[in-house]
Amino acid sequence: MKSSEIARTEHGRQFVLVFEVGDEVVQQLNSWCNERQITAARLTGIGGFSTATVAWFDWQAHEFREVRIAEQVELLAISGDIAEQDGKAAVHAHVVLGTRDGTTRGGHLIEGYVRPTLELIVDEVPAHLRRRYDPDTGLALIALEDSSRIR
Amino acid sequence: MKSSEIARTEHGRQFVLVFEVGDEVVQQLNSWCNERQITAARLTGIGGFSTATVAWFDWQAHEFREVRIAEQVELLAISGDIAEQDGKAAVHAHVVLGTRDGTTRGGHLIEGYVRPTLELIVDEVPAHLRRRYDPDTGLALIALEDSSRIR
Amino acid sequence: MKSSEIARTEHGRQFVLVFEVGDEVVQQLNSWCNERQITAARLTGIGGFSTATVAWFDWQAHEFREVRIAEQVELLAISGDIAEQDGKAAVHAHVVLGTRDGTTRGGHLIEGYVRPTLELIVDEVPAHLRRRYDPDTGLALIALEDSSRIR
Repeated sequence: MKSSEIARTEHGRQFVLVFEVGDEVVQQLNSWCNERQITAARLTGIGGFSTATVAWFDWQAHEFREVRIAEQVELLAISGDIAEQDGKAAVHAHVVLGTRDGTTRGGHLIEGYVRPTLELIVDEVPAHLRRRYDPDTGLALIALEDSSRIR
Repeated sequence: MKSSEIARTEHGRQFVLVFEVGDEVVQQLNSWCNERQITAARLTGIGGFSTATVAWFDWQAHEFREVRIAEQVELLAISGDIAEQDGKAAVHAHVVLGTRDGTTRGGHLIEGYVRPTLELIVDEVPAHLRRRYDPDTGLALIALEDSSRIR
Repeated sequence: MKSSEIARTEHGRQFVLVFEVGDEVVQQLNSWCNERQITAARLTGIGGFSTATVAWFDWQAHEFREVRIAEQVELLAISGDIAEQDGKAAVHAHVVLGTRDGTTRGGHLIEGYVRPTLELIVDEVPAHLRRRYDPDTGLALIALEDSSRIR
């Protein structure tokens, strides 16, 4: 994966990331955010995966159920945000995937192996986004507080 | 739903919105925009719904056909814009939803009940976006005019 | 298609584009980018198509397989970027489409005929994004280099 910082304003940096064949997105994105101390951002992009694992949140059981997509797919949409969780950057991304016959799959992204490419744009947002464990859902959810308010 | 204004430039404000279990998105977003006098913006986000209603535009009949999604789904993508219609903010959003088996549904968002969370980013755009009734389609469409041109 | 430049900063211009019934998106967007010398941007939007052709990249054959969608669909998500390829602007966009029954299709966008509308926001990015032929994949991929780094 190669990245390039393309803009820097008082409100944050903007990056373009281009992944290569075989790169696993979630792990590389988490590492990259931690290296650059990016703890609040949003991401969008398109590309393709050779295989991926997505998940669906089972509200009754309060846990994720994984679905394995073991085929080449177009990455039709990836949307997500980056927040701080337990002192580290944590990527939360959802994906929509397109198969050979034009039907689609998708879910919460657990892992995705890039093929042939993935083009992401990451925009820092000028807030302190922090995930906190939420006992009602069993999930780490973004907790907005006054401290996250810039103005 | 909690919101936090995270940036303000000459070109508009940027907000993070975090919805809670049971919140209905479309109605709350319309109210929130009207309270803050936001009449031109775009929104992106991810989350989950306990139930949702989406719609497909029937071109022959010139009306929307509703499809009810009566199950827990991942909100894989929500894209939309906010424009002024009849003097009030009107949200126009499309969603892609992921089910338990990784298949997807989607349409024009009529209503969606958040569960477990919904994380939205709303960016004001520095234009006057106004929807006007279009007799050819029977829809309120954004009418770009010279007056919407800033430079 | 009508467009309006709504913001201009040191980091680039922002445009709203509203397409009309019958407009073909890919060709019109490529022409529009070339007229305005836009060679690095990202785009997002929502709308509807009367018909569309999407594609899936066949990794073994190293070529795209087309899937024709010959029905009215909601354009649930369009994500993409604009880069320079062989001296001209080249749009690379992926779409998710919603059908009458709420199921979805999608792929790499080959062509899409707008009906009833398409509302796009195009943001220039302050980088030189250039696609180069990649012999390993047979595709024109964005090549990030030091020259694309602004700071």
